[in-house]
Amino acid sequence: MEGVHLSSPMMERALRLARRGRYTTSPNPMVGAVVTDKDGILVGEGYHKRPGGPHAEVGALAQAGSRAQGGTLYVTLEPCNHTGRTPPCTDAIISAGIAHVVIAMKDPNPEVKGGGIERLQEAGITVTVGDGETEAALLNKFFVTWSQQRRPFVTLKAAMSLDGKVATKTGDSKYITHAKALAFTHTLRRQHDAILVGVNTILADEPALTYRGKSPGSDPVRIVLDSHGRTPPDARIFSVSSTAPTLVFTTNQAPEPWQREIFSAGGEVIEVPADPHGTVDLAEVLHECAQRHLLSVLVEGGPTVHAAFIAAGLADEWYSFIGPLIIGGEAPTPVGGHGVSALSDAWQLKPLSVRRLGPDVLIHAQFLGRDVDLEGGLLHV
Amino acid sequence: MEGVHLSSPMMERALRLARRGRYTTSPNPMVGAVVTDKDGILVGEGYHKRPGGPHAEVGALAQAGSRAQGGTLYVTLEPCNHTGRTPPCTDAIISAGIAHVVIAMKDPNPEVKGGGIERLQEAGITVTVGDGETEAALLNKFFVTWSQQRRPFVTLKAAMSLDGKVATKTGDSKYITHAKALAFTHTLRRQHDAILVGVNTILADEPALTYRGKSPGSDPVRIVLDSHGRTPPDARIFSVSSTAPTLVFTTNQAPEPWQREIFSAGGEVIEVPADPHGTVDLAEVLHECAQRHLLSVLVEGGPTVHAAFIAAGLADEWYSFIGPLIIGGEAPTPVGGHGVSALSDAWQLKPLSVRRLGPDVLIHAQFLGRDVDLEGGLLHV
Repeated sequence: MEGVHLSSPMMERALRLARRGRYTTSPNPMVGAVVTDKDGILVGEGYHKRPGGPHAEVGALAQAGSRAQGGTLYVTLEPCNHTGRTPPCTDAIISAGIAHVVIAMKDPNPEVKGGGIERLQEAGITVTVGDGETEAALLNKFFVTWSQQRRPFVTLKAAMSLDGKVATKTGDSKYITHAKALAFTHTLRRQHDAILVGVNTILADEPALTYRGKSPGSDPVRIVLDSHGRTPPDARIFSVSSTAPTLVFTTNQAPEPWQREIFSAGGEVIEVPADPHGTVDLAEVLHECAQRHLLSVLVEGGPTVHAAFIAAGLADEWYSFIGPLIIGGEAPTPVGGHGVSALSDAWQLKPLSVRRLGPDVLIHAQFLGRDVDLEGGLLHV
Repeated sequence: MEGVHLSSPMMERALRLARRGRYTTSPNPMVGAVVTDKDGILVGEGYHKRPGGPHAEVGALAQAGSRAQGGTLYVTLEPCNHTGRTPPCTDAIISAGIAHVVIAMKDPNPEVKGGGIERLQEAGITVTVGDGETEAALLNKFFVTWSQQRRPFVTLKAAMSLDGKVATKTGDSKYITHAKALAFTHTLRRQHDAILVGVNTILADEPALTYRGKSPGSDPVRIVLDSHGRTPPDARIFSVSSTAPTLVFTTNQAPEPWQREIFSAGGEVIEVPADPHGTVDLAEVLHECAQRHLLSVLVEGGPTVHAAFIAAGLADEWYSFIGPLIIGGEAPTPVGGHGVSALSDAWQLKPLSVRRLGPDVLIHAQFLGRDVDLEGGLLHV
C-alpha cells in the first residue's frame, strides 16, 4: 500500500467520483469510472451509488454514448464479468466499442480475480492494470479486507487524556474530549457498517451506539460482546429508536432464559464457540459479521475488548482521541488485557495522520504487526 | 498571554535578535534592541548574549553612534536603571539623545518594575509600552516566572505509547519513541537550566541526565528528588563526565551516613522540609532552585514525581511524546499519584502545538488549572 504508482489525471478523477459513494455503497465497493473519446477528451463519467444501482462503468458509458467508440475507459476496480443484480459490465464495455481499459486494481475477491480482465482481452481490448492502485486499494480497504480475509475491516478507537487514561479511577469518562472530537466519532460510526463494544461498556456507560452526526446517515449495526450473558434486557441499546439491529454475541455459558429475554427486548443473540479463555472467539464473531455483509466494524472499547482484538491479530487501524487534560492515579488505559513484558514485543503501528480537533488531538494509525523496526524496516523476518 | 497586540516590524526584529541569546543568557532574560534615526531608518541593533556581557540597548546604541540623536529605541524589555555587572542602560539611552523608547514589556521583577521607564520619562523621553508584549512575555517565560513567582518555570515531559503507557508491566521502557523524539528531548534539556527526576527513575533507568544533542550546549544541572536517601552513591549521574553539578534533595528522614557518601561521590545533598506525605516539599525545592538562579526545570518523571508537581500546582507546561506502539496490560502511565475521581476535577491544559517527529507524535500543552471549560471559558470563577 506504499506510494509506488502515481495515478493519471483521468484515474484521479475516477477515484474522486468513486469516493462520492462512500456512505452508501456498502456492502459493494466504491467504484468510479471515466470515459475519454479516441482523442482523449472526457465524454462520460459515473460512480456506483448504492447496491442494486447501476455500476460506475455503465453510467459513464451511457453518458458517453457513441463517443465511447475507440475510446478509453478508466475504472477504479476491475469490471465485473458476472450477472448479479445488474448485467456484467464487461458486455457493456465491449458493445460500446471501447478500445482501451485502464483499471486501478483487480477484483480482490480470490474467486473472481481476473475474470473481467480476461473477458475484455479476449474481445480484443487493451487492458492496463495498476494506474492508481494504491489509492484504489486504500479507498476500498473495507471491501478488500472483507473479500480477501473473509472478515470485516476492524477499526479501534479510544478517547484518552494526555496522561493516557480513558476514565478516572472511579470510572468517570464523560467527557474526555470535546465537540469536534465527538462529531468525528459520529463520522467514524457513519463510515462503518457496525459498532462493537464489550458488555462492560454497556454496563458502565449505557451507550445508545447510534449515528447522531449532522450529515444524513443511517445507524450502523450494533454489536455487543457478552460471553456470559450479562447484558440487561432493559439496556438502552434495545430501547433507543433505531432501524439497525442489535447483535449480542455470547457463548454457551450464557443462561438460556437470558437469551430469551434479550430476544424479547429486540436483540439477536448469536452463540459462537468460546476461545481458550472462555470468552467469545473473535475470529468466529468476525466470520459471522462477514457472512452478514458487514464489511467494517468500529470497536469502541473498552480496554479488554481492544486488547482481545489486538492480541488476536484482528485489528487493522487505531484512533487515539486525546483530550488536553490530566487525570492521574491508577485509572484505566485504552488497552488492557495481558499486555507485553518486553517492549520489543509491543504491537507496532504506522501513523497515518495527526490532526487537531478543537482542543483535542487525533492520531490515526495502522497496525503493522510485531517485530517491526519503524526506522529501518523489519527487525526479524 | 493571548494575542492581543500586534507588534511593529521594528519590534519583531528586536524580538528575533533577542532569540539569538536563547541558549546563553540564563539567568538573565533574552533582550533584543533596534535603533532607528529620526527618519525611521534602522541604524543599530543588538542583543544580550551572556551574563556579564553588554546589554542589548548598549550594543544597538554603540552601532548607531551619533545617528541615534532624536531617534527611536525599540527594546523587548524595560531598560535597567541600576548598576549590575554593567552600568544602567537608562544612562546610555539618555546620553545618546534618543527621543522615543518603545518597550515590549515592563521588567517582570516586582522590585524593579517601572524604575527604568520613570527615569527615561524624567529625562524628557517619550516612552511607549506594550508593542510585542505577548511575544516578549512568551520568549522570556522562564525569566518572567522566576521573577514574579520566585520559582523556576517547570516543564513536564513523558514518552508514552498510543495506549498511554510509559513502560511495560515489567518496567521495560527503552525506547518507546525514536531518534527524532530523542533528539528533541536533548533540545529540551539544552533549553532548561536543570533536569529533575525522582529516585525511582535513577534506580530503574540509571540515566546520565546530560545534554547529548548535536548543537553545542552545556549540561543542565541535575536534580534528584530522594526523600528517604535511596540514591546509590555509585549511580551513573555521579560518575558520568559533566561540568554540571548534581543536587540531591532529601528530607531529615535520610540517614546521615548516606548524605556523606553522596557528598563523597560528588553530589550535593540539600535537606528541605517534608510535606504532609513525608516527601520533599516541592515549593521548597523550587525555592532553593530559584535562589541558585535556575530559571527553568525540565521534569523527566517518573509518574509519581509528575503527579506531585501537578497536584501542587507547580507545573507550567507538558510534553507528551507518543510512540506508535501498543503495550497493553497493567502498566505505568505518565502521571501516577492519587489522581482525580470526577473528570470535572481533572487538570486542564491548552495545546500549544502538535507535531510529528519521525514516526512519533509530540503534543505540547500549557497547564491552565482546574475548573476550566475549554470550549467556553471558565466554568467557576
